[in-house]
Amino acid sequence: MKRLIARLENVGEVITDPVRLRTYECDGLTYHRATPGVVVLPESAEQIAAIVRLCNEYGTPFVARGSGTGLSGGALPRSDGVLIVTSRMRRVLEIDLDNRRAVVEPGVTNLAITEAVREQGFYYAPDPSSQQICSIGGNVAENSGGAHCLKYGFTVNHILACEIVTPDGDIVMLDRMDAGYDLLGAFIGSEGTLGIATKITVRLSRTPESVITVLAAYRDIAEGGRAVSAIIAAGIVPAAIEMMDALAIEAAEAAVACRYPENAGAVLIVELDGPAPEVDLQFAQLREICADAFELRVAADAAERAAIWKGRKSAFAAVGRISPAYIVQDGVVPRTSLPQVLAGIDRLSAEHGIRVANVFHAGDGNLHPLVLFDDAEPGAGERAETVSGAILDLCIEHGGSITGEHGVGVDKARYMPKMFSDTDLDTMQLVRCAFDPKGLANPGKVFPTPRLCGEVPGVRKGPHPLVEAGKAEQF
Amino acid sequence: MKRLIARLENVGEVITDPVRLRTYECDGLTYHRATPGVVVLPESAEQIAAIVRLCNEYGTPFVARGSGTGLSGGALPRSDGVLIVTSRMRRVLEIDLDNRRAVVEPGVTNLAITEAVREQGFYYAPDPSSQQICSIGGNVAENSGGAHCLKYGFTVNHILACEIVTPDGDIVMLDRMDAGYDLLGAFIGSEGTLGIATKITVRLSRTPESVITVLAAYRDIAEGGRAVSAIIAAGIVPAAIEMMDALAIEAAEAAVACRYPENAGAVLIVELDGPAPEVDLQFAQLREICADAFELRVAADAAERAAIWKGRKSAFAAVGRISPAYIVQDGVVPRTSLPQVLAGIDRLSAEHGIRVANVFHAGDGNLHPLVLFDDAEPGAGERAETVSGAILDLCIEHGGSITGEHGVGVDKARYMPKMFSDTDLDTMQLVRCAFDPKGLANPGKVFPTPRLCGEVPGVRKGPHPLVEAGKAEQF
Repeated sequence: MKRLIARLENVGEVITDPVRLRTYECDGLTYHRATPGVVVLPESAEQIAAIVRLCNEYGTPFVARGSGTGLSGGALPRSDGVLIVTSRMRRVLEIDLDNRRAVVEPGVTNLAITEAVREQGFYYAPDPSSQQICSIGGNVAENSGGAHCLKYGFTVNHILACEIVTPDGDIVMLDRMDAGYDLLGAFIGSEGTLGIATKITVRLSRTPESVITVLAAYRDIAEGGRAVSAIIAAGIVPAAIEMMDALAIEAAEAAVACRYPENAGAVLIVELDGPAPEVDLQFAQLREICADAFELRVAADAAERAAIWKGRKSAFAAVGRISPAYIVQDGVVPRTSLPQVLAGIDRLSAEHGIRVANVFHAGDGNLHPLVLFDDAEPGAGERAETVSGAILDLCIEHGGSITGEHGVGVDKARYMPKMFSDTDLDTMQLVRCAFDPKGLANPGKVFPTPRLCGEVPGVRKGPHPLVEAGKAEQF
Repeated sequence: MKRLIARLENVGEVITDPVRLRTYECDGLTYHRATPGVVVLPESAEQIAAIVRLCNEYGTPFVARGSGTGLSGGALPRSDGVLIVTSRMRRVLEIDLDNRRAVVEPGVTNLAITEAVREQGFYYAPDPSSQQICSIGGNVAENSGGAHCLKYGFTVNHILACEIVTPDGDIVMLDRMDAGYDLLGAFIGSEGTLGIATKITVRLSRTPESVITVLAAYRDIAEGGRAVSAIIAAGIVPAAIEMMDALAIEAAEAAVACRYPENAGAVLIVELDGPAPEVDLQFAQLREICADAFELRVAADAAERAAIWKGRKSAFAAVGRISPAYIVQDGVVPRTSLPQVLAGIDRLSAEHGIRVANVFHAGDGNLHPLVLFDDAEPGAGERAETVSGAILDLCIEHGGSITGEHGVGVDKARYMPKMFSDTDLDTMQLVRCAFDPKGLANPGKVFPTPRLCGEVPGVRKGPHPLVEAGKAEQF
């Protein structure tokens, strides 16, 4: 490692001071920690390529990190590895409004893209709650979502091209042009295991002409759920449909005094956007559908809209006010299975004596149960872990997935075999090993068993049989 | 081959009669022909897997074929290989309107999906001109487009999951769930080189409440082009914006008597769809933008709409009425470059004395120049080929692609190096070789040089170095 560090110092700024290294020991999932062997702060794709090539030369694993806001430990460093931090790469390189695209470096924050084009009437659509600080490179790695993904889709739907450094240090362009393989889709959400994005071309969207934000309060989650189904069945596609249960509301109230209607068993936040006549029409339909809400608030202006969103956006942090510790879970189920899955979570909660606050993107069935526990109470952490894991089992049982938008990272790798067959996982490994035969790119993430590529069935172990047999002309 | 055929007969119906084999010698691109070594007609995923495993055992290449309507020779058979025809796999396996999806077999035609759900108010959005006969499996292989892809996106945007048989005969599920790699995106459009789709889950869309179809006639292509730009700049996203030039109109008139306005230098077909108030609003804007058209027709009913579309949809075949032979080209450019590229095509046409009829999806910059020639005239075919190739060069120069929606197939493989660097192509080959180390799945398609996997830089040739060195614990 010493010799590697000396050579890294020729490439860019390097951090080796143990106190400074500690800053990088975890991402947003603080439960997993590891002090990186060394941190490098590159300023260009060429520097990242040089770092990766050095890692290859020394057989040293590397992990890329943006702003470190991820919630699945995808950017957890390796104590025997190099942490490549992209925070120095924050330039907006090109804005092309005619073709509605911008080219940015990976360290640019999600919100900074919107800020660069807002005055011209454009924005970047995916909006994770952490959008003020999370980096676009991290969004690409995790295929991040957000409240407005119901209508506008995930990161993958808004990235048009990426320049990447491959795990062996080549600089390659991946784009959506309809010729050859669309490797961009496989790269987005690959959590750093297939390379590091160094230039990202994002799609810019038009700022909608009209936005209407509604808060509907219900007696219980079931009533709220019925409203969600009715909205979707009516053919309305709101920009967002968010739901919070009583416990989540209590937490938000304690933290940010959001003044949601009292005694609500559930609140629904519905945002409509688009051309004014379309939004007005949808709003009329929505009013009818939500007629049975015991209170319906409509934001009169941007300040009132912000007030409605404040409770929702602070929900994760807010549970800290009502519980000493908690686990943020992330699962997704077909929207039609939401009622059964929520009932199942209730049962788990009662059974294990563990409170669960539910916050979710109701429109697309993406649940964020907050599993609360007291870390001073012996065994409580384990019980919370049990409930949290059982919630994922519920999601899988109902045809859903172990992650909606936070990624697999280090945290959920162990659940992958519950969702995928061995053959499915081996097929993914084929691709990982094709990109990264030495297993140096963010090893230990996504896949359940850190396997050598030589152990993956189907990964070729010798020279091509036909090369040896001299049958090359057959092809 | 004889022994292979005997064993294939145990799996499913086999065709070996030379006359019957001739039926399969080409797809929609009749310029390339090869009689398949043998044809098999499987009826299930298990049978396809068995066929592929037999091909692996005998080192015999295989090609999958749906309805054979492709326009890039993607389904061109191998005379030394097995042609797997999916026409017996035409079952709609499941319709789930609540979750807006259907599961179908690969031989189901594109239009049959819509027909299965039309009465319930749903449809399958991507609409290649061949939709009455082309198969959904072929659509997946080529990532097919269509006139309405401007608003609704390509096949890749409407496929939620695929069960596939991999090139080594495993049955694997690829889906869009946000965990692990999204290999579905890489598979869609891989033209049979990464496996064969055996069950396809498609997204169903709501039939729009209102549709307005407008035909605007202009004196020349430049005027029409300005209208296209104005429509997009106004923030309208029509379901389709199609353009035809004078020569294409002449051909359509000769073939189907579509009665487009006389003396038009260009016609624009604009279709708006969505909720009625939104469509009405867009239509008012469109009328204003198209005020300088010398004639504007609005379809009063379904029959008039069909009449407007008739000319456009028959355009490819129609040029047969005005030219003994022609090449259908397919390229795409950023919409903002359309005027320069069209001017360039005009120059090429004049320079080589070759007529070019232009038909295009104007909204998304997808050109379909029809390069006309007389195959009885010595040298004319070569000149047409030159013009056709030069048009692709023009597309690349303007930041576009060598194919918009017809795929690379056998026909355009040679252009790939003009668009991609060696490193980019090698990265795609890494994935191909990971899935198909023996190079048996549709070899000779997509990639310019049929290379053995052992020759691709970066494809590992020996056992993993760390396995040998006993350093496995490092990971």
